[in-house]
Amino acid sequence: MMFLGEGPLKAPRIVSTGVKGFMAAATSCGLKPAEDKDLAVIAARRPVAAAGVFTTNRLAAAPVLLCRQRLLEGEGLLRAVVINSGCANAATGSAGMAAAEKVCEAAAGLLGCTPREVAPCSTGVIGVVLDDEKVVGALPRLLRALSPQGLEEAAKAIMTTDAFPKMAEARAGAHVVVGIAKGAGMIEPHMATMLAFLLTDAPLTPSELKAMLTEAVEASFNRISVDGQTSTNDTVIAMASGETEAPVDRQGLAKGFNRVCQELAAMIVADGEGAGHLVGVEVDGAASEAEARAFAYAIARSALVKTAIAGGDPNWGRIVSAMGAAAGRRGLEFNPERVDVWIGGHKVVEAGLGLGPEAEERAAEAMKAPRYAIRVELGIGNGRWWVLTSDLTHEYVSINADYRS
Amino acid sequence: MMFLGEGPLKAPRIVSTGVKGFMAAATSCGLKPAEDKDLAVIAARRPVAAAGVFTTNRLAAAPVLLCRQRLLEGEGLLRAVVINSGCANAATGSAGMAAAEKVCEAAAGLLGCTPREVAPCSTGVIGVVLDDEKVVGALPRLLRALSPQGLEEAAKAIMTTDAFPKMAEARAGAHVVVGIAKGAGMIEPHMATMLAFLLTDAPLTPSELKAMLTEAVEASFNRISVDGQTSTNDTVIAMASGETEAPVDRQGLAKGFNRVCQELAAMIVADGEGAGHLVGVEVDGAASEAEARAFAYAIARSALVKTAIAGGDPNWGRIVSAMGAAAGRRGLEFNPERVDVWIGGHKVVEAGLGLGPEAEERAAEAMKAPRYAIRVELGIGNGRWWVLTSDLTHEYVSINADYRS
Repeated sequence: MMFLGEGPLKAPRIVSTGVKGFMAAATSCGLKPAEDKDLAVIAARRPVAAAGVFTTNRLAAAPVLLCRQRLLEGEGLLRAVVINSGCANAATGSAGMAAAEKVCEAAAGLLGCTPREVAPCSTGVIGVVLDDEKVVGALPRLLRALSPQGLEEAAKAIMTTDAFPKMAEARAGAHVVVGIAKGAGMIEPHMATMLAFLLTDAPLTPSELKAMLTEAVEASFNRISVDGQTSTNDTVIAMASGETEAPVDRQGLAKGFNRVCQELAAMIVADGEGAGHLVGVEVDGAASEAEARAFAYAIARSALVKTAIAGGDPNWGRIVSAMGAAAGRRGLEFNPERVDVWIGGHKVVEAGLGLGPEAEERAAEAMKAPRYAIRVELGIGNGRWWVLTSDLTHEYVSINADYRS
Repeated sequence: MMFLGEGPLKAPRIVSTGVKGFMAAATSCGLKPAEDKDLAVIAARRPVAAAGVFTTNRLAAAPVLLCRQRLLEGEGLLRAVVINSGCANAATGSAGMAAAEKVCEAAAGLLGCTPREVAPCSTGVIGVVLDDEKVVGALPRLLRALSPQGLEEAAKAIMTTDAFPKMAEARAGAHVVVGIAKGAGMIEPHMATMLAFLLTDAPLTPSELKAMLTEAVEASFNRISVDGQTSTNDTVIAMASGETEAPVDRQGLAKGFNRVCQELAAMIVADGEGAGHLVGVEVDGAASEAEARAFAYAIARSALVKTAIAGGDPNWGRIVSAMGAAAGRRGLEFNPERVDVWIGGHKVVEAGLGLGPEAEERAAEAMKAPRYAIRVELGIGNGRWWVLTSDLTHEYVSINADYRS
């Protein structure tokens, strides 16, 4: 089900609750200019069940390659995640791998675990080898600072272009799921890297955790990262401490993972530079789910649609044209004469034709809300998909939104 | 061969030469606000050989459907083209078709030909039926104004978001090819509709003309219109009056068509809002031409790359990451360790690794030029493709270009 989030678009969301069995901390190690925090650690008391989902970018960064080894090929146990901003350590070859490994070795030595139980994550500039000496030098004081309440500081330290830190929480019976994330917007320069970390105190096996995480990512982060815009470093890692030993409400916990990921995903879209609206694009009636997905992304990616959203202009022609272009290019089943379109719950197109100024006025009123849906019914089959999008910058928009084309 | 154009990026290009056998004129009929010219006609003295290439958008506008009838199913003879701005007459169903047909009938009546010898073209707002009364009312004075020197006025009347009119000319022996175009930029809101009209005085059959036009479009306009961004109204029409009866230098004339289309295409890219650079993206060594094309578009479309171009930042990591993302998504053959990259002729990446600050400084110097190339060698096969791109707006860039990710 589509989830648009709630409340003001750009408010920092800090959930103070810690998660039993986890501690976190953040510090500055000099990768970012000035004294900006750029290094964080999340650690369990012992190696715990862990799972990960990673970028499909073929230029995967060194830390992503190491995380894959640990979580996809290894036993799925992690003691800690060490995350730096200021340097992506991507396109850095064997020097980059060596640097990431040194960080893991140093952290493992201090924590008393094996390097394979430490997952490295990086975000920042591509093409620069991680300065492992800076990171390793800061690790002792970082680990001394570990605290059950440290997640908020970690959420801040992993920010790059983010305007606000991102954190969400859900409960399922006796257990809790807490997530932090970084990433901003749907506009490519802001997609940069998306990192998210999910922690639960429920006792789960690595494969149970992997199943819940994969389903949650599919219904959240994979609804915002536009085709082909994956960064070299995108990473989502989940860890389960198992320190609250009550019976697990598996369905409730899976819902909790979904909810936390969806809240974080909505925050990432809302954090687009100049974004004033968070819009769900729902396509129904396509020939297949894959075709619905292609149409939904065609609308959500269209800068013409995104400027119309910013301008509060119910310019349905741009919505239908974006689908027509995708259909022509990719050979999707599409018949303009069967298309219905709703904006903010108001029908503006029926059977491919506009319903006139009154319908558009109602839609324009609905477009003043910070969160609303654009819904399309294609009248072909049963394929459905939804994605989240936002509008473009005001500066950009001031040039483009006044011209209807 | 890649063509980047020459001279200042944004200068109007008006070629005063007319083309024997053709006249043109422009006027204001009230589709655009104020007294802006919004209606143009290009007419031959008699029905002449004509050919067209049209949008692949499945929401093709009424005028496009009529042009296709005339040029793809008909005999390939046209007496005139009637072009309006201010209204795309797209997504307008049967009412839109009727309006476009009325315009053709009225023009045919005044010119003394059949309506099937008049091609209609429209650009502007989608979803509004063309006000045919306004157009028909203006046709008598428009046709009275027809002049062999009228093309310049026509080039101005078809502008929408364009910052300058676009015109180009090439000679082949005794014959000439002149083209006018409208369209601006690679950023979607500016792609709007692309229209181009090519005129020659050479005697050609419709099928000869079609072959030359198709080849020229493939090497020009199809190198800038990014996948899926086709508008509902994109149209390129060529007409050959045959009024200069010297022997035709077919090879020279084909080159002339290519050159005129490439100059117009380069002008369209250069007309992107805030665009300060026109950049050719050349990909070589891909597994196939199709894969080279996919990689070239992945680079050319990347807002991260386009902001780096604007900032004069030889941020090769963004170039390689854009390819890695496309490779991961589309299953293209890609090995980061074999990738070489040149910016403005200076090699900055070899075997996937950066060549250091000195190489980047040389590239940064080259990036100050208004026109330059980004070249990538993938080291896989023999697939080659090139496309043209430009940078993004300064406003947009001021937010994004300073952060390297």
